[in-house]
Amino acid sequence: MARPSKKSEIVQAAAELFSTKGFKATTVRDIAERAGVLSGSLYAHIDTKEDLLIEIVRQAANEFAQALAPIVQSQESPTAKMRAAVHAHLGVIASSRAWSTVYLDEDMAFSETGRATVRQLRRTYEQYWIQLLEEGQQQHVFSDIDIGLTKLFILSALNGFHRWYDPKGRLMVHEIADHYADMILKMLA
Amino acid sequence: MARPSKKSEIVQAAAELFSTKGFKATTVRDIAERAGVLSGSLYAHIDTKEDLLIEIVRQAANEFAQALAPIVQSQESPTAKMRAAVHAHLGVIASSRAWSTVYLDEDMAFSETGRATVRQLRRTYEQYWIQLLEEGQQQHVFSDIDIGLTKLFILSALNGFHRWYDPKGRLMVHEIADHYADMILKMLA
Repeated sequence: MARPSKKSEIVQAAAELFSTKGFKATTVRDIAERAGVLSGSLYAHIDTKEDLLIEIVRQAANEFAQALAPIVQSQESPTAKMRAAVHAHLGVIASSRAWSTVYLDEDMAFSETGRATVRQLRRTYEQYWIQLLEEGQQQHVFSDIDIGLTKLFILSALNGFHRWYDPKGRLMVHEIADHYADMILKMLA
Repeated sequence: MARPSKKSEIVQAAAELFSTKGFKATTVRDIAERAGVLSGSLYAHIDTKEDLLIEIVRQAANEFAQALAPIVQSQESPTAKMRAAVHAHLGVIASSRAWSTVYLDEDMAFSETGRATVRQLRRTYEQYWIQLLEEGQQQHVFSDIDIGLTKLFILSALNGFHRWYDPKGRLMVHEIADHYADMILKMLA
């Protein structure tokens, strides 16, 4: 297996720190220390702390999008796609907790430019969900819902998951996803 | 009308700053400045910055609880109670945005003791929702659901509201609450 590059070790260290301490409370020195480089030499790899944040959000957004794309493009029924999408979304949160926490929660940390980038990344991902809902509605499998509001409702419900999920808890991720998909499909029917 | 006390002005200033900049990035000097007191004299009113945070969470939790209590205790049907509860919860978020943002989002900021207090406050409030769900289930109005998971799903969906709600947007709070209540009641039926 290839050794992770120094850059990717730094991004990983930053994701872990931002997700536990928060972006603003994490110093460049903290990141350097956890990644095992000198503070000074960190700047050979990154420009600013915010660049790291945007890099994390970009990679997290990619991971969510890559999990959803094959589902959205598949030939399955709208119901099967929605169930698979719920599993995929919670799966990404569970397996990339630190990254998705930063992606979902770090809203206050951005400058104007950063915020625009992040908003664009989120919007692209949310487009998949809109597509799933529209398709179900066009095929008369989902009822006549307000797509925008339903998307917000579903994604908010799913995104709360990273706050309470306990890998040692009573239910496994796929069991929670099944319950959640049942509720959502009943709501959409 | 009574003038607000200096202490309550300080708490209000802190709520506004914590909800926009975040707890960790807000300094005692920022709070003093916004409340119009000298940094030094702030400590005549508070012990630590975390005390302010806990005070905000406590007041926000009280506001949510006071909105729900009469609904839970009323003689209405489980369906009517659930609809009223959705309206009440979103109403508190919309009218006390800064306070509820701190209550809902500031998880990383607490010390161990603070975290325990906040967890207790949230648990007390969530108990109302569990009661509503249990009652509906006992009266066979709601289906045979996993109460714990359903509570998490509903509250996550509702709590996402404070992140995207725009008072100048296409829908008013009570319209959004009606849509949300429709979705939730369909899901529970």
